[in-house]
Amino acid sequence: MRIVDIIVKKRDGGELSAGEIASLVRGYVAGEVPDYQVAAWLMAVFFRGMGPQEVSALTREMMRSGRVLSFPGLRCVDKHSTGGVGDKISLPLAPAVAACGVPVPMMSGRALGHTGGTLDKMESIPGYRTVLSPEEVERLLGECGYAMFGQTEQMVPADRKLYALRDVTGTVESIPLITASILSKKCAEGAQGLVFDVKTGSGAFMKREEDARSLARSLVEGARELGREAVALVTDMSQPLGRMVGNFLEVEEAVEVLRGGGPADVRELVCVLGGEMLVLGGKAASLEEGRRMIGEVLDDGRAYERWVKNVGAQGGDVEELERRLGKWRAPVVREVRAVEEGVVGAVDAYRVGLAGVVLGVGRSRVEDAVLPDVGVECVRKRGERVARGEVLARVYARDETRAEEAARMVGEAYRVGEETPSGSLVLERISP
Amino acid sequence: MRIVDIIVKKRDGGELSAGEIASLVRGYVAGEVPDYQVAAWLMAVFFRGMGPQEVSALTREMMRSGRVLSFPGLRCVDKHSTGGVGDKISLPLAPAVAACGVPVPMMSGRALGHTGGTLDKMESIPGYRTVLSPEEVERLLGECGYAMFGQTEQMVPADRKLYALRDVTGTVESIPLITASILSKKCAEGAQGLVFDVKTGSGAFMKREEDARSLARSLVEGARELGREAVALVTDMSQPLGRMVGNFLEVEEAVEVLRGGGPADVRELVCVLGGEMLVLGGKAASLEEGRRMIGEVLDDGRAYERWVKNVGAQGGDVEELERRLGKWRAPVVREVRAVEEGVVGAVDAYRVGLAGVVLGVGRSRVEDAVLPDVGVECVRKRGERVARGEVLARVYARDETRAEEAARMVGEAYRVGEETPSGSLVLERISP
Repeated sequence: MRIVDIIVKKRDGGELSAGEIASLVRGYVAGEVPDYQVAAWLMAVFFRGMGPQEVSALTREMMRSGRVLSFPGLRCVDKHSTGGVGDKISLPLAPAVAACGVPVPMMSGRALGHTGGTLDKMESIPGYRTVLSPEEVERLLGECGYAMFGQTEQMVPADRKLYALRDVTGTVESIPLITASILSKKCAEGAQGLVFDVKTGSGAFMKREEDARSLARSLVEGARELGREAVALVTDMSQPLGRMVGNFLEVEEAVEVLRGGGPADVRELVCVLGGEMLVLGGKAASLEEGRRMIGEVLDDGRAYERWVKNVGAQGGDVEELERRLGKWRAPVVREVRAVEEGVVGAVDAYRVGLAGVVLGVGRSRVEDAVLPDVGVECVRKRGERVARGEVLARVYARDETRAEEAARMVGEAYRVGEETPSGSLVLERISP
Repeated sequence: MRIVDIIVKKRDGGELSAGEIASLVRGYVAGEVPDYQVAAWLMAVFFRGMGPQEVSALTREMMRSGRVLSFPGLRCVDKHSTGGVGDKISLPLAPAVAACGVPVPMMSGRALGHTGGTLDKMESIPGYRTVLSPEEVERLLGECGYAMFGQTEQMVPADRKLYALRDVTGTVESIPLITASILSKKCAEGAQGLVFDVKTGSGAFMKREEDARSLARSLVEGARELGREAVALVTDMSQPLGRMVGNFLEVEEAVEVLRGGGPADVRELVCVLGGEMLVLGGKAASLEEGRRMIGEVLDDGRAYERWVKNVGAQGGDVEELERRLGKWRAPVVREVRAVEEGVVGAVDAYRVGLAGVVLGVGRSRVEDAVLPDVGVECVRKRGERVARGEVLARVYARDETRAEEAARMVGEAYRVGEETPSGSLVLERISP
């Protein structure tokens, strides 16, 4: 079948065979199918969607376009978050789960748009390396039970190529394409069990809860088609997670959680997601038990021990890291204060995320550098009562101009009123 | 606005401004907007359509991407057909209308797919040239009242580029895109009045009558937005027009009509379309009068006189042409006979057109050459009673293999039964 006929078949609502999807993806990666044909097909998929068989065929082809990791003898489990503001969950989660005996090959991404990236956060630790060979990942899984690394050039090239094309052709927001993109990466990294944290709310890519639910279902279904056990949680991203939004600022907060403290929402999500991972990894009989086990390793220092081991093993300077805790802040500090008394009704995650981009936490373009010591500290969060003139948030910036702009944006993110807002952190749990 | 935002706006059902459409088209022609972005936009247009303002903005940009002809002091009128099988209407129509005093700058196309092309037919006349400079077209309009020529490299480059992209991205079948493609060419050739012959039925590109009606309305509306007077007729293309399908074979049939004879359907359509053109050109007060005038110039030799003048002026050998009439036939002849007695119920135009492609009348690929002396003669047509064993059609081929295959296809095109079929030639007339 000619490529144009495959495009027309999808355009007219047909279901593509695995062979047709393979022609497209393999041809594209090999440079034989031109990007304009793939662009037209992507737009047709945007309008027509894809069935479960098509999503799994696409995922498989994307995954097999590059190197696929496997760790024989290890039952690995990983978590993937669709991205949010202040989402440092991976940092305490991986060592906590590893401390409970489930290995975690955690392949993560970088900041893009208003959301932060796990790799950027970890790299704010002096010396920490995230470019690892598959052999290093395997060694780290043995040594400290987890590894934090970025996708290499050899892995899932089809996803990188397709994602770059989607980005410039207006075809990013398609649930089957997002599903295949996430799953192809997660399945290529060698995990048998997957927990998806699908964020919804202003700070998420899926602003609408119904879209987040659809993506969550699609991910769980797609993972099952590919022979992986998976669970998805739809979680709230209408306000930032925890109090810190930054790179080293978030490392600090992760360390607090790993030492048994930290903000309640971060600890809760670590326990909930960790509990799911322990069940998938066969180390807990129930979610209840899994959550309790995670809480224990956070409280008794075993999770932090893993963290210290990993930071050292990946080249990080643990002493320097500990020395900088609570001190490493960009020089220009601005406070955002409450203009009147009341209850914090909202801390708009999207606006805080954009303020982060202004400060250099994230990036507007892939080639921008991120700064380790800047960010936003949300001193007050939703549901907390504040007096007039009380500090709501602090902004840490490299210069006055950016401090000014970011503080203004953070100020606009806050709503203070009389009504006490409600809302749960975990909105839905989707299992096969 | 970035190009990706323009794509997303259309994708989400928005109406693009003239400026946004200009950024796309100009950027594409200049090589600044990549084809993959245009491909995604075309597919979004396929799904979302375009409003009248968008169509006219697109048409205008396409038209202005190259040279635009104009003939000051002349009120030119042209006809455009969406293409069919045996559609030689332009050949007698242009000289007939010119003979009535309305100049016709007839820019035509070549055979593609199962349909024939006016330029290929005219070039079967020994010596006839269709590559003309704008100055030659102007001179010919003065000398013989009409010119038959192809689009040059300098005209409407945006259409050529966009059409080539649509062809390989599954975005051909979009009424706004077809409208802009046709109108940009027709408006660039300097005609003030336009008559559209939108074909429907098996031999047309618009198989479904409702699609043909939509295109007809879209063309008339689009032309009006661009300040042209236009009328569209939806006409039947379920069986071939006339009896001849070929290149020189159709020249012969055109000559018959120009000498006051020829098949009734071809003469009728020439009179109807010509009548419309005379009204648009200001030479007839009513369609009735226009039709009558065309009939007169066909009968009294004035139309044929124009034809002879034009053939000579465009380099054709009139004596040689006349010498070959009725004689120039490819050597291998096959007859298709009725297997039983009855009334011809259908002569499927699409199948006859495909038989033509096999014989070399048309082309499967743009780079294929066409043959002048091959084709199909439909001896019998719809509604005619035939005896068992009577000749239904003849096939003229260059070799046995192709004769065999084409005869089989033509045989399959015929349905003979007892019911007398009905159907009119002109199905609808659409005026502003």
